[in-house]
Amino acid sequence: MTERGHGSNVKRIQTEATFDLSAQEFVIHTPCEDAVKMYIGNAMHGNYAAVFAQLIVDGRSQGPHCFIVPVRDESGSLYPGVTAIDMMYKEGLHGVDNGILIFDKVRIPRDNLLDKFGSLAPGGQYYSPIEDKSARFNAILAALTPSRLAVTFQAMGAMKLGLTIAIRYSHSRRQFGPKAEEEVKIIAHQTQSLRLMPHLATTLALTFASRYAGGLLDEDIFQGKELVDSRPLQALVAGLKAYSTWENIRCLQDCRECTGGMGYMMENRISGLKCDTDVFVTFEGDNVVMLQVVVRELLAQYTKQCQERPLASWLRSWAESGGDNLRTSFLAFTANTVGALTFLLKAVNFRERVLQRGLVARIYYKVVTKKEDFFGAWNSCLHHVASLSLAHVHRVTLEQFYLAARRCPEPEHRALLMKFGKERDRLERLPQKNKEKDTEADPSAFCRLHINKSSSPVEGDKLTPGASSKEETGQFCLLYGTKLVFQERAWYLEHKYLTPAASTRIRSQLLDLCDSVKDDALRVISAFNIPHAFLHAPIAGIANPRATWAFYPAPLRPKPAAKL
Amino acid sequence: MTERGHGSNVKRIQTEATFDLSAQEFVIHTPCEDAVKMYIGNAMHGNYAAVFAQLIVDGRSQGPHCFIVPVRDESGSLYPGVTAIDMMYKEGLHGVDNGILIFDKVRIPRDNLLDKFGSLAPGGQYYSPIEDKSARFNAILAALTPSRLAVTFQAMGAMKLGLTIAIRYSHSRRQFGPKAEEEVKIIAHQTQSLRLMPHLATTLALTFASRYAGGLLDEDIFQGKELVDSRPLQALVAGLKAYSTWENIRCLQDCRECTGGMGYMMENRISGLKCDTDVFVTFEGDNVVMLQVVVRELLAQYTKQCQERPLASWLRSWAESGGDNLRTSFLAFTANTVGALTFLLKAVNFRERVLQRGLVARIYYKVVTKKEDFFGAWNSCLHHVASLSLAHVHRVTLEQFYLAARRCPEPEHRALLMKFGKERDRLERLPQKNKEKDTEADPSAFCRLHINKSSSPVEGDKLTPGASSKEETGQFCLLYGTKLVFQERAWYLEHKYLTPAASTRIRSQLLDLCDSVKDDALRVISAFNIPHAFLHAPIAGIANPRATWAFYPAPLRPKPAAKL
Repeated sequence: MTERGHGSNVKRIQTEATFDLSAQEFVIHTPCEDAVKMYIGNAMHGNYAAVFAQLIVDGRSQGPHCFIVPVRDESGSLYPGVTAIDMMYKEGLHGVDNGILIFDKVRIPRDNLLDKFGSLAPGGQYYSPIEDKSARFNAILAALTPSRLAVTFQAMGAMKLGLTIAIRYSHSRRQFGPKAEEEVKIIAHQTQSLRLMPHLATTLALTFASRYAGGLLDEDIFQGKELVDSRPLQALVAGLKAYSTWENIRCLQDCRECTGGMGYMMENRISGLKCDTDVFVTFEGDNVVMLQVVVRELLAQYTKQCQERPLASWLRSWAESGGDNLRTSFLAFTANTVGALTFLLKAVNFRERVLQRGLVARIYYKVVTKKEDFFGAWNSCLHHVASLSLAHVHRVTLEQFYLAARRCPEPEHRALLMKFGKERDRLERLPQKNKEKDTEADPSAFCRLHINKSSSPVEGDKLTPGASSKEETGQFCLLYGTKLVFQERAWYLEHKYLTPAASTRIRSQLLDLCDSVKDDALRVISAFNIPHAFLHAPIAGIANPRATWAFYPAPLRPKPAAKL
Repeated sequence: MTERGHGSNVKRIQTEATFDLSAQEFVIHTPCEDAVKMYIGNAMHGNYAAVFAQLIVDGRSQGPHCFIVPVRDESGSLYPGVTAIDMMYKEGLHGVDNGILIFDKVRIPRDNLLDKFGSLAPGGQYYSPIEDKSARFNAILAALTPSRLAVTFQAMGAMKLGLTIAIRYSHSRRQFGPKAEEEVKIIAHQTQSLRLMPHLATTLALTFASRYAGGLLDEDIFQGKELVDSRPLQALVAGLKAYSTWENIRCLQDCRECTGGMGYMMENRISGLKCDTDVFVTFEGDNVVMLQVVVRELLAQYTKQCQERPLASWLRSWAESGGDNLRTSFLAFTANTVGALTFLLKAVNFRERVLQRGLVARIYYKVVTKKEDFFGAWNSCLHHVASLSLAHVHRVTLEQFYLAARRCPEPEHRALLMKFGKERDRLERLPQKNKEKDTEADPSAFCRLHINKSSSPVEGDKLTPGASSKEETGQFCLLYGTKLVFQERAWYLEHKYLTPAASTRIRSQLLDLCDSVKDDALRVISAFNIPHAFLHAPIAGIANPRATWAFYPAPLRPKPAAKL
């Protein structure tokens, strides 16, 4: 798809697929330097390429379509007219051989057009089920939705790996401490838990949000629904792609820094993960473009609602706004409410709606009242667009985390958790030892820790997926919500949703939560269930014979728990 | 210095240098696995090592001292008792061969002790000009100050390189635009200038702040003053090291993302710079530790002032606080003041002082009133410590930027700028063309641009260093101050220093400034004066025969200007 001249603006790609009626063939051609295909994965070895090109019939373009173009024969030699150039070294992803493809009037059969959204009859008549050219283009691009979701899952995978390594090391490595006493684990330093715990909460939140998006996508595909018709899903996936990949970069950077010089060594994985995943913010749609896709879809929905029931929409919007104000003035002055998840859920909801109304009003004013050109008006609101877009994803992600934490788990998980329940009975009869020491030496310590932490008996059948109890997932959910409101507290203060005192409390709450979940973090990462063979970082306590010097003992050896 | 068990906590290193009276030698020994020397640069090739070890006389340690230990003979063979292990692959800095050094009772002459702060007589009597062991340790560590400043300069160098590449590309690459018109330069997208311009302003600010610190350091060295006696300078340099290296990471990450897939290609430099400089936040003192050094020094100063003139200090602090409040309530309600540099200077000053007073009060309460252990009390304030530390560096950096922008340049710069004045006369007689087109095609466009931008005549002899006029540096200085207040606006709102309306104006001001300086940015980066041979990134318009595919035309060819 990508060309030298056009990465994000796919509509203007310049590669041509001109129909030759007499030969019943398409002529694939690169008309200029800007039209060369770039960053093509496997370009140096592949036999076939799926090439996006302007479909030209009778000298007129029908917009970008996708064509199957054979580029090499079975022996690996390029076909005549095809040029491939290696793009050499990248920051990471060294296993992917990116290259440039150039086509010099390469002929392919008429059948090689992927014709779901636009086909060509043998006589040269173009037909598409979608008449509007722009809508057709959107339908073709909607095919990117599943791969964007895949990028989200990959980013989460990298976060889980990085956090597992950094948190295990933080519970093993010691530095500084009270005078003449043993040094403390580095996780005990306030700044260390403050840097790592919010990322762990975010990773859990993203797990549930992207699982939710995956469920919707499966359902649509199962029902044979066109992806382009699921605007909220497209918006959500574009937003999740941007949000998760940016969070991944921040998370791995903190993992790298929190593991010091050890984190800079390739043996310990984090650096390599950083380099490999850095491009996630760019490919499958640049993140800044993704944020615009989100808002375009949100506004399309909004417009549709307004067209269908203009008065009702307006009234609802007004009523919700009134409700927000009531909640605000009531809640913001009550001491403990910022600690309630319901308050946080309402806060992120409020922010999304206010930003959306504000953006609609601004664009309306610029385009309709001031008659500004749409591109210029949109561009002057890009910062606002980006804020709304992320606010939308934050809201959905917090909601999905909340719902998942409340929901009863699948039978498989329930059975696993019940087993913990039995284990508890046996272990409760053992004498209690010092908790910290236990976790390092004793393989059965995980279960004991699991129980010792709960002041009330664990209700096995109500636990959420993974090894975490409802209460603990709840704590991480609260931490995630607190982080979201904390990072946007200036906005909430500007909109008088938070009083200065409430804003200060949000900060204390963030610090307290990070401190209180830092030991549970070990159990959450063990519930990620990453096999040691895939982890293979010596500082995480997994021996590597080629780098014995980097080995640190594992902080504890929990039993494998359900996948999160 | 660094050992496996002790990186940041140097005081507790375990390598031993035991004095053998009869042989008049020190025995350098690694007593355990945690004591092996790690990350040692050039460990695989060096002939001598400067080894930090506990100096032990008569079974008692005098604390860490530095010893010269021969590790290899001239042919490169390790001496008996020395083991060197390669630490293999890192994220970057592949030219530095880091390794492990282990000593098995290696004997060195008594003279090999570097004895400025502690010497040993032939009879075994230890003498140090600094009696207090802790103060002696601080004096030895003060030697790190110059190398920390060097890291700051390296980080700035990387920022300048990255920004030069990203800004040149952003002024050359086009994507999206109004319907049926030529696509716009990507710098014209609001988000692009919003991501790059604040980094450019920060780089300029850091240039002046670190030049200021360098000046103080030179002066101290020239006057033969001990570094440990310059507490404010030590605090500033530790802070600048942390601040500049973190800003560098954020800056290069944005440069990478703002140059899309091209930024991920090694040929375009940014990825390599990122990997090489990533460890800057860790080495020469982990940044989180550096922030604590800053605050320790600030509090030491504070305590000293209070001890010397307790009433005066208290009164001054109180008076300044009252002044702050007056300023606040007056300024925050006046419409245009947030746009004044004086307001921003006062704001960062206010923040530093309030944070300092707050921290002193908190620690006093915890340690004196509540009798908490100092380590625990300090640790529970680490987030506060980090905020104060950065607030201090921000304040000094903005002040130094402001002073530099106001100051008259050196004669050499003045002469260069006078030449522009003459150039102007010639160019003003030329017909005026479309500004944007000019800058790309015409080598003399730089000068014309220089003049066209100014509404009033340029006063050559009052220009600041580099190619920027006073007015423009002023704009970047305003942008830097705006960025500082914008990023902490939640704090200012919490402390009622900003009203919600003023806070919203700060955001608009940031957006407006980023937009208005985006063309001047080309002249600022040209004033960095980086030779093309060092830049060699094809997307910056510097041809590379091995990667012709990455070449983008240079946005304009300004005349070389003075170094910044």
